[in-house]
Amino acid sequence: MTNNRSSSNNDDDPNVVKESVIRMMTRLAIEYKAVNLSQGFPNESPPWPLKVSLAHSVLSDGGDNINNNNDQLNQYSPPCGRTDLRSSIANYYRRFYEYDNISPEDITVTLGATEALASALRTIGRPGDKCVIFEPFHELYPSQCKLFYLKPVYVTLRPSMNNSDNNNINDNDNDNENHSNTIWTYDENELETALSDAKILILNTPHNPTGKVFTKMELTHIVALCRKYDVYLITDDIYEHMCYGNDTRHIVIPKEFPELTDKTLVCNSIGKSAAATGWRVGWCLHPPHLRDAYRGIHDQLCVMAPHPQQFACLSYLSLPDEYFINLAKKYEKRVQKLKNALVSVGFKVIFPQGAYYLFVNYKSVSQLVDMTSVEAAMYLLKNVGVACVPGDNFFGNNLEETTNKYLRFAACRSDKDIDNAIQLLEEKLL
Amino acid sequence: MTNNRSSSNNDDDPNVVKESVIRMMTRLAIEYKAVNLSQGFPNESPPWPLKVSLAHSVLSDGGDNINNNNDQLNQYSPPCGRTDLRSSIANYYRRFYEYDNISPEDITVTLGATEALASALRTIGRPGDKCVIFEPFHELYPSQCKLFYLKPVYVTLRPSMNNSDNNNINDNDNDNENHSNTIWTYDENELETALSDAKILILNTPHNPTGKVFTKMELTHIVALCRKYDVYLITDDIYEHMCYGNDTRHIVIPKEFPELTDKTLVCNSIGKSAAATGWRVGWCLHPPHLRDAYRGIHDQLCVMAPHPQQFACLSYLSLPDEYFINLAKKYEKRVQKLKNALVSVGFKVIFPQGAYYLFVNYKSVSQLVDMTSVEAAMYLLKNVGVACVPGDNFFGNNLEETTNKYLRFAACRSDKDIDNAIQLLEEKLL
Repeated sequence: MTNNRSSSNNDDDPNVVKESVIRMMTRLAIEYKAVNLSQGFPNESPPWPLKVSLAHSVLSDGGDNINNNNDQLNQYSPPCGRTDLRSSIANYYRRFYEYDNISPEDITVTLGATEALASALRTIGRPGDKCVIFEPFHELYPSQCKLFYLKPVYVTLRPSMNNSDNNNINDNDNDNENHSNTIWTYDENELETALSDAKILILNTPHNPTGKVFTKMELTHIVALCRKYDVYLITDDIYEHMCYGNDTRHIVIPKEFPELTDKTLVCNSIGKSAAATGWRVGWCLHPPHLRDAYRGIHDQLCVMAPHPQQFACLSYLSLPDEYFINLAKKYEKRVQKLKNALVSVGFKVIFPQGAYYLFVNYKSVSQLVDMTSVEAAMYLLKNVGVACVPGDNFFGNNLEETTNKYLRFAACRSDKDIDNAIQLLEEKLL
Repeated sequence: MTNNRSSSNNDDDPNVVKESVIRMMTRLAIEYKAVNLSQGFPNESPPWPLKVSLAHSVLSDGGDNINNNNDQLNQYSPPCGRTDLRSSIANYYRRFYEYDNISPEDITVTLGATEALASALRTIGRPGDKCVIFEPFHELYPSQCKLFYLKPVYVTLRPSMNNSDNNNINDNDNDNENHSNTIWTYDENELETALSDAKILILNTPHNPTGKVFTKMELTHIVALCRKYDVYLITDDIYEHMCYGNDTRHIVIPKEFPELTDKTLVCNSIGKSAAATGWRVGWCLHPPHLRDAYRGIHDQLCVMAPHPQQFACLSYLSLPDEYFINLAKKYEKRVQKLKNALVSVGFKVIFPQGAYYLFVNYKSVSQLVDMTSVEAAMYLLKNVGVACVPGDNFFGNNLEETTNKYLRFAACRSDKDIDNAIQLLEEKLL
């Protein structure tokens, strides 16, 4: 039997959504027994109290008696999430950001940031609407735009000298990229042109893959443009606790820019910060006028986040401040260590201000210089034993200046894995 | 700041997806301290081995040592689901249905049947495509059509005498509905007309809310029409183990109708059968030519089902046959008990052949006769203390013959809850 009408199995159909290339690299890493620095998930355990809490919820409904016949925690929660969890999330924003003006009714618990973002895009966007995305980007953003028939428009981040200290540096890209004063910036006119007829801007800060943390000054400009052109802002805050250096901090948009609260949706997840990427718990902060629309979509798409994990998330939100401080320290050390090794074997590296990725220029590595980014990633996988992600996967405009130039390494794996990768890189590339 | 462009917060926008009315009734049940026979989820525990397995996965990565530093089970699995789980699901179809011709590559593990269905609809459907749904229906189907801009088309199920034994029965609906030979049927011409220009048919059997189990003869007709008009079939099989009586059995379409395998997607979940609605694990069986498209959508929509629950699902799939046989017996008893009570207080009830709902005609109950179905449900909630779902929530054509006529009661709650509800109904309505 042939299928004459459907185009859903046609590779050329722009509406076909493909599997994540990042996760494909993880599969290849396993196949080739390579150290996996491709996909950005930890191989360390969530904190013990979270694990105990999850077991507790399942076995005894969170009570003292294992023969507890009440069994709420294995069954549906309210689709928008447990009430106590949404209260705890509100408290979390008070604690870390002094964001007091937030109600549990402004929060919906989701299946991780991924579903939070999907539901946000469907709440705001309608087929054909333009959605602006900074490139390089996490592939999720354009893929989810496709899911709901939105049109992604890309604004390019480029390495440039930090204006405050650029007097003695030449502006050749290749020389810039190992300098500590190089940062990733966008062109203001390019952004304004893109936003002028857009419906949505997706903002990820700290940024995957570059490690850029958008500054207050940049965000002030972005917020002004969103207001000027009536654009909704969807933020992806999953690396919020991973900001490095004294000058770098995460900014929660509706807290610091209340004038954009009614057009901002903040997506977040415990996956990265709790080292529990397999648990699938996140949330969205949404303005009151979008609450019902957002919750309706979330509900009909996937009902609710797993209930035992929602209960365990209460333990995550009450972890002491030290946990979050140490988290940043731990990842900063790994990022620094991997950065030094990558520089030593010839990559050009801009040190990230946040998150836990190194998005590096490989054109200065002799073995890789003539390769496409896919070939370079496959070379490292097969000949070095280290899995990373081809940089072209992170671009949509496919400009000559960004094509076949970058690779992304994730520094979130255990110290042992990072050390193994460094040893392999130094052995095989030097 | 006003929002001139977006229509996403406008109640009249046909693309706005609303919160589930069924789950709203659960909220009201809690508010009014009523016995909750509205939402179809059990208030009993999943089997003990499943709970232990979930705790085990979280605490010690499924191993013997609680200090196990390997931590795969709290992190991402492959987006399509653990390989061992997909193999077990394939074995499950061999065991229960002698369906041998199924590979783990034909299976994707999902966030319950809800996400399985959403991903299926997005895989097949394109904006404007028609999707045929039997009414009464679970509200999820038209809501998910809206999510992806598909156009739902409804084919009405009506109570009618079983043809094989209709000689001595008059065909007045009201008299039919308490007769054991009354079943829900569809009009063949109505279905053919609807399918003639449709892209998708959603089939739920055993059927929520009527309890209809589609027969081999009916399915043969449906499959022939799907082939004739090149229509994809998406099935929702979540009540597969709840078939009552010796003549009633669940049919897995691609097993018994291999000629439609390449156009059939089977959605399923452990939520109802394992009494674990809060765990969010299900799956989809898809034809090979749709594998990549389906997995891409599932991946980008929500990545993966929670990993600890995937591990625990292995225990579910290896429960002995007795578990599944007893499950059907348990629910059949409750359905029978609630049916008898509802008939005794005046409702007209067609006894379901499967699932665990009673979709009953309330026009013969004196207190409710002049009410809309919403008023009738609110009356029972406030004056009787029993929460059910207004029948109009299950119809889309809004025909006079189906409007303000039905209520849905779920008989899946504990014996104690069922008994309480029966006592309240008998006290307040007799």
